[in-house]
Amino acid sequence: MTERTRLDRRRLLTAGLAAGGAALATRVVAGESDAAITEIQDWNRYLGDGVQARPYGKPSEFEAHVVRRDVEWLTASPESSVNFTPLHELDGIITPNGLCFERHHAGIAEIDPAQHRLMINGLVETPLVFTMADLMRFPRENRVYFLECAANTGMEWRGAQLNGCQYTHGMVHCVMYTGVPLKTLLQEAGLKPGGKWILPEGADASAMTRSIPIEKALDDCLVAFKMNGEALRPEQGYPLRLVVPGWEGNMWIKWLRRLEVGDEPWHQREETSKYTDLLPDGKARRFTWVMDVKSVITSPSPQAPVRHGRGPLVITGLAWSGNGTISRVDVSIDGGRNWKTARIDGPSLPKALHRFYLDIDWDGSELLLQSRAIDGAGFVQPTKEALRAVRGENSIYHNNGIQTWHVKADGMVENVEVS
Amino acid sequence: MTERTRLDRRRLLTAGLAAGGAALATRVVAGESDAAITEIQDWNRYLGDGVQARPYGKPSEFEAHVVRRDVEWLTASPESSVNFTPLHELDGIITPNGLCFERHHAGIAEIDPAQHRLMINGLVETPLVFTMADLMRFPRENRVYFLECAANTGMEWRGAQLNGCQYTHGMVHCVMYTGVPLKTLLQEAGLKPGGKWILPEGADASAMTRSIPIEKALDDCLVAFKMNGEALRPEQGYPLRLVVPGWEGNMWIKWLRRLEVGDEPWHQREETSKYTDLLPDGKARRFTWVMDVKSVITSPSPQAPVRHGRGPLVITGLAWSGNGTISRVDVSIDGGRNWKTARIDGPSLPKALHRFYLDIDWDGSELLLQSRAIDGAGFVQPTKEALRAVRGENSIYHNNGIQTWHVKADGMVENVEVS
Repeated sequence: MTERTRLDRRRLLTAGLAAGGAALATRVVAGESDAAITEIQDWNRYLGDGVQARPYGKPSEFEAHVVRRDVEWLTASPESSVNFTPLHELDGIITPNGLCFERHHAGIAEIDPAQHRLMINGLVETPLVFTMADLMRFPRENRVYFLECAANTGMEWRGAQLNGCQYTHGMVHCVMYTGVPLKTLLQEAGLKPGGKWILPEGADASAMTRSIPIEKALDDCLVAFKMNGEALRPEQGYPLRLVVPGWEGNMWIKWLRRLEVGDEPWHQREETSKYTDLLPDGKARRFTWVMDVKSVITSPSPQAPVRHGRGPLVITGLAWSGNGTISRVDVSIDGGRNWKTARIDGPSLPKALHRFYLDIDWDGSELLLQSRAIDGAGFVQPTKEALRAVRGENSIYHNNGIQTWHVKADGMVENVEVS
Repeated sequence: MTERTRLDRRRLLTAGLAAGGAALATRVVAGESDAAITEIQDWNRYLGDGVQARPYGKPSEFEAHVVRRDVEWLTASPESSVNFTPLHELDGIITPNGLCFERHHAGIAEIDPAQHRLMINGLVETPLVFTMADLMRFPRENRVYFLECAANTGMEWRGAQLNGCQYTHGMVHCVMYTGVPLKTLLQEAGLKPGGKWILPEGADASAMTRSIPIEKALDDCLVAFKMNGEALRPEQGYPLRLVVPGWEGNMWIKWLRRLEVGDEPWHQREETSKYTDLLPDGKARRFTWVMDVKSVITSPSPQAPVRHGRGPLVITGLAWSGNGTISRVDVSIDGGRNWKTARIDGPSLPKALHRFYLDIDWDGSELLLQSRAIDGAGFVQPTKEALRAVRGENSIYHNNGIQTWHVKADGMVENVEVS
């Protein structure tokens, strides 16, 4: 990593601030030299658009900067690439469908649902093919889950690289899915005794596949057709995707067209040459499915600097774990020397994003912001140093290390590592 | 009401069906004369769009029918009108932002957030004016709430009128809000002892206002700036709206620009000539704020007929109450003679939509579908007959009566009343 981004914690020893409840916000007393109070605006004066103008709504034009973004040099082509969620602009735990990150291996399949089928074959009593209408006749479930790409934060194995949580952590989103339990469909086909693994396959041109053990398939997986109430978006697998709660995103096969049942894993491309973890001794860990406990501060962050100067400052971020709920999030403003317990606000749902806040009174000095999540199973988010000590420096996937943001006195924020 | 829509329950006495768990769905055995299985589709063969194509995503073109719709004859102009949520197409409890119903009194205000201010004045120690940036410095909360217009189902006071739950019940939606508790802002200004009511005011050309008692203002109201994670949509009050959980929608002032504190209600237009309930004796009930316990079956329904014939059928709908959570939903398939307890699936959050299902094996005979919700406070959704016996037939608002859908043998569905 570059010298530019490695900071000595001791350099910032003066950053010890009294974190406390929010005090007075900057405010203007009514009538006091604020033209916006007294000027009549067009929207106070004239009728706006009527209801026929927008059958399907969209954001205000003043929010045009809140979009998914890619990093062109990161991938060879836009069809096998990623568009990151603008986490720094969002709040709460629900990601709006239009901003859910997208990762494709052969571009976005545009499927006519009337022509789409889901086949179950292999070690089953009765091979089956379902139309979308067939699937709508099985009992459904609704669950809120995060989806994280195994490569999220992957660039950061080599040190602080990308300047913004959209790029360092934006391969995660969280929506409410509606679908049929995978267990229900497998039972409909009838598993043969030797059926120990399933292979979901996508209908896009990459025919994406992953091996999933039957225990997970019979546990909490869903064959989903809706997200946040409406049909899946094309880039999220319309009309059908597999939901594999808490496990790495590329197993959540999009455009799902087939489920094969077998007696052993298939060792496909995306679980051998990719999505495995190269260790210092040259061996690779495979089948590292669970997305471990992780968190990131989304504001302040490089794309969301502090523009208001000293005084009350809302520090907020996201925490999640493939093991279940988040039991606690700690936040440090001095690079990990001292920690305060953050306030988790909103629903705490298993394998879903959790939103946390620490409301402080900023004295205007430099900060080294970090968050550290602890999940319900007791796992504690590790430092990047601890991760590298075990996994070396050749990894790409499963980087759940503690992220550091350097907030400067002018409010600008930079991605750094502390040592 | 017309004779066409009034059905005698006894006519359909043969509709007594054994409601039970789902059995086999219609299905095709692999390879059995289904061209869609063997034909190679374009989306299997060619690369799709890359990630740069859609910075902000949108639904599949095959979902172009899933939109908000208005009823032209219902209102005088599109600027003072309503666009209904397509409840029959949705599932789960989250409404995607693009499909949340909209109701305006002077069209959609298109506000530049940099020019927007929120003023607190009246019986306060310090009158205050906040910029949007100021508001972002107070501690925030995230809550999922339904929002229902008081006039939802209002046409049905006169009998079955509109053929589709989008039109009969589509003035309700449910999202996760992020905002600052109203209590926090009022405390920042400092309430004077006489401050017993607040008057929120909108910045649109209608300058919408409603009187709200201070007890509610200090309880669970939010000054919200986000819905489902992103900024409020323009038609939902961007950049700021008041959230008044469980209370009628027109109190949730959009484009919120002012909060006045007073010692008594203001008796504004929208709480005297409108949004009051005319009773049989000629008197009108005022300040009927709470949206009472209510439910509706969203599928099957007139816009979502049964197309698959007899066999497994998913009956699903929504239930909600301004009093808190829903403790039970019963479903009848014979016009209210017999009831089965439905399965509530997904999070059960106070003052939020609840999703229910009854999975039956349909024998193909006619059904009279009804749902009846019971809330955590013990209130039971009434029949329309019981409502009319108390409130007469001149009401517009607060119709939470039990809805009946007539499912015919061919699967078509009609809005009816039973007697």
